[in-house]
Amino acid sequence: MISPLASVSPSAVLGEGVSVGNFTIIHEGVEIGAGTRIESHCVIGLPTPLAQGEPLILGAGSVIRSHSVLYAGSTIGRSFNTGHRVVIREHSRIGIQCQVGTNSELQGDLEFGDFSRTQSDVFIPKHCRIGRAVWLLPRVTLTNDPHPPSDPADLGVIVEDYAVLAAAVTALPGVRIGRCAVVGAASLVTRDVPEGRLVVGVPARDRGPASSVLMKESGRPAYPWTTHFHRGYPPELVEAWVREFGAPGGDGVEGS
Amino acid sequence: MISPLASVSPSAVLGEGVSVGNFTIIHEGVEIGAGTRIESHCVIGLPTPLAQGEPLILGAGSVIRSHSVLYAGSTIGRSFNTGHRVVIREHSRIGIQCQVGTNSELQGDLEFGDFSRTQSDVFIPKHCRIGRAVWLLPRVTLTNDPHPPSDPADLGVIVEDYAVLAAAVTALPGVRIGRCAVVGAASLVTRDVPEGRLVVGVPARDRGPASSVLMKESGRPAYPWTTHFHRGYPPELVEAWVREFGAPGGDGVEGS
Amino acid sequence: MISPLASVSPSAVLGEGVSVGNFTIIHEGVEIGAGTRIESHCVIGLPTPLAQGEPLILGAGSVIRSHSVLYAGSTIGRSFNTGHRVVIREHSRIGIQCQVGTNSELQGDLEFGDFSRTQSDVFIPKHCRIGRAVWLLPRVTLTNDPHPPSDPADLGVIVEDYAVLAAAVTALPGVRIGRCAVVGAASLVTRDVPEGRLVVGVPARDRGPASSVLMKESGRPAYPWTTHFHRGYPPELVEAWVREFGAPGGDGVEGS
Repeated sequence: MISPLASVSPSAVLGEGVSVGNFTIIHEGVEIGAGTRIESHCVIGLPTPLAQGEPLILGAGSVIRSHSVLYAGSTIGRSFNTGHRVVIREHSRIGIQCQVGTNSELQGDLEFGDFSRTQSDVFIPKHCRIGRAVWLLPRVTLTNDPHPPSDPADLGVIVEDYAVLAAAVTALPGVRIGRCAVVGAASLVTRDVPEGRLVVGVPARDRGPASSVLMKESGRPAYPWTTHFHRGYPPELVEAWVREFGAPGGDGVEGS
Repeated sequence: MISPLASVSPSAVLGEGVSVGNFTIIHEGVEIGAGTRIESHCVIGLPTPLAQGEPLILGAGSVIRSHSVLYAGSTIGRSFNTGHRVVIREHSRIGIQCQVGTNSELQGDLEFGDFSRTQSDVFIPKHCRIGRAVWLLPRVTLTNDPHPPSDPADLGVIVEDYAVLAAAVTALPGVRIGRCAVVGAASLVTRDVPEGRLVVGVPARDRGPASSVLMKESGRPAYPWTTHFHRGYPPELVEAWVREFGAPGGDGVEGS
Repeated sequence: MISPLASVSPSAVLGEGVSVGNFTIIHEGVEIGAGTRIESHCVIGLPTPLAQGEPLILGAGSVIRSHSVLYAGSTIGRSFNTGHRVVIREHSRIGIQCQVGTNSELQGDLEFGDFSRTQSDVFIPKHCRIGRAVWLLPRVTLTNDPHPPSDPADLGVIVEDYAVLAAAVTALPGVRIGRCAVVGAASLVTRDVPEGRLVVGVPARDRGPASSVLMKESGRPAYPWTTHFHRGYPPELVEAWVREFGAPGGDGVEGS
């Protein structure tokens, strides 16, 4: 259902069952997949010179919550899910089944892999590369400028598959956070973090394998989280995780 | 005055003198007390499955500033005051005369006691419990997940009555910050803070009684703050504070 | 072009070529210079008692991005540029060619000098003074309250000309960050920073002259940044910088 109080360009291509809330603007050329819900007060497909005439392509089955702004020139896979007031700028390449939390900003010219999620207030500047099934907890700040102001500021942070950055982490320009690594809350990452390690502190120091963190109830390793946390992920992905990382054994709903 | 440019459900119950700004949406079943002012571009009473059919109940004499989103299923006491772009999700139980600052988010399933205030950019996830007359300064981040991602993430932070968390504080899941305690700016709270103590640092360490912090001008103890800061609090509450904490003796307007 | 879906007060004074987006509100008495573009969902010139009847004056050639809120009683120079969802409160005195990034808030009663820029998520409370050509990177938090809550909280941070605060820096009330000084990412500034020094850490410690930071590619000093970063600045300003700080010698586009 398209609200009569929305402003929808006649050249926008809306799939079957797309809904658009009150006071939302859909710009020209936008392509929105079937069943996607755009809430109120959004700006979808904002055209800019940087978008170079490319449209916004937004996958089917997505939910864009109120007051969000998605620029032209980005491609977002199906089942995308945002909080309120998200900003996603030009040339963001976002995979399938991703989530971006309330107040988070993706500044464009970046990659955000399948199944990755941010919670609220996450800041990702240009030239960052986020792998698959990465978790960025609230108030994570990534950077890209080794001696600000630089021109260009293009030394983005790389976060590899399954890594977790806890709340209020800051990562310096150009660091690479390895696959299945975990960064503790409020840490400052100043150097590369090897695969599967836990780092904590300001600056962040190695505290051993991430698997040394144990879950409170079960006493089993909390990482890699893929052995016990499956909420919202497709069954075939979970099966692949079981094959790769081992059988479920957590203290969560699915893992008990 | 209800703006003709607002979208107000006929089933919303608006008390006498309620005003609703341009481009604001009031959803079905919302109950708003007399004299409350809702500014422009807000979404009030957003229904979701998690709200389980419960309405939003918003007390009299409140001010909701522009671009805020209040979900269905929460109960908010009288004289509530928000900044711009606040988000309050389902099953938030908010007392009387509270304030939530610009860009702050209360993620629901939480308690926020009478007279408590956040300033801007404060993040409070589910299952936190904020006592009475608590102060959360700008950019405070509370957490609830001991080894993210967990399901459920339900180990919220507890902040007891009259405690103060200064700017940019992060508190780890499950910590309890005691009554009248003070946490210094940019600290990381990793363990419980006893009543009336001052903690500072990353991780936060005990620095003595909070009363050892002296006010610049008067040289008297700055904590508990209830002895000298009374702005916006009702006289009967201030009288109770005088009985409990001692007579005013500050360097503020009221304390001189 | 004024959108027919905007709400524009007849007493607002709009210069030639001003454009106003959908669902934006322009309040009474606002003065907007020629060629300024106001995007959608904004609130411009919000009147409040604190504004004491003074209008908002917004300079020519500015761009105000969507969902921003600019209060009455502030004066903003020409060529002002905001991200989305900026809040600028009463009695902010903002110079020419300034930039305030997405989600940033200037709480009023403050000065923000010519050519200064914030990136996203920057918080500046009342009584701060930002000099000329200052850079505040994402998630910088300034403060003004030495023992919160105070009344008044008026011990703002002073940031002098050409200083740079990197991402996620917090500065305590009343500190003065000197001309051409640099504060490293995620630092907590607890005392004054002398001119031209680099400080890093929690709390921030002196690490030598800012000129000891070298650019990766050229090996030349990264600070003062005015010797090599000129993007978006007017030629006459750059010429003055060359006279004062020396000839260009960077690894940027302009400096090679």
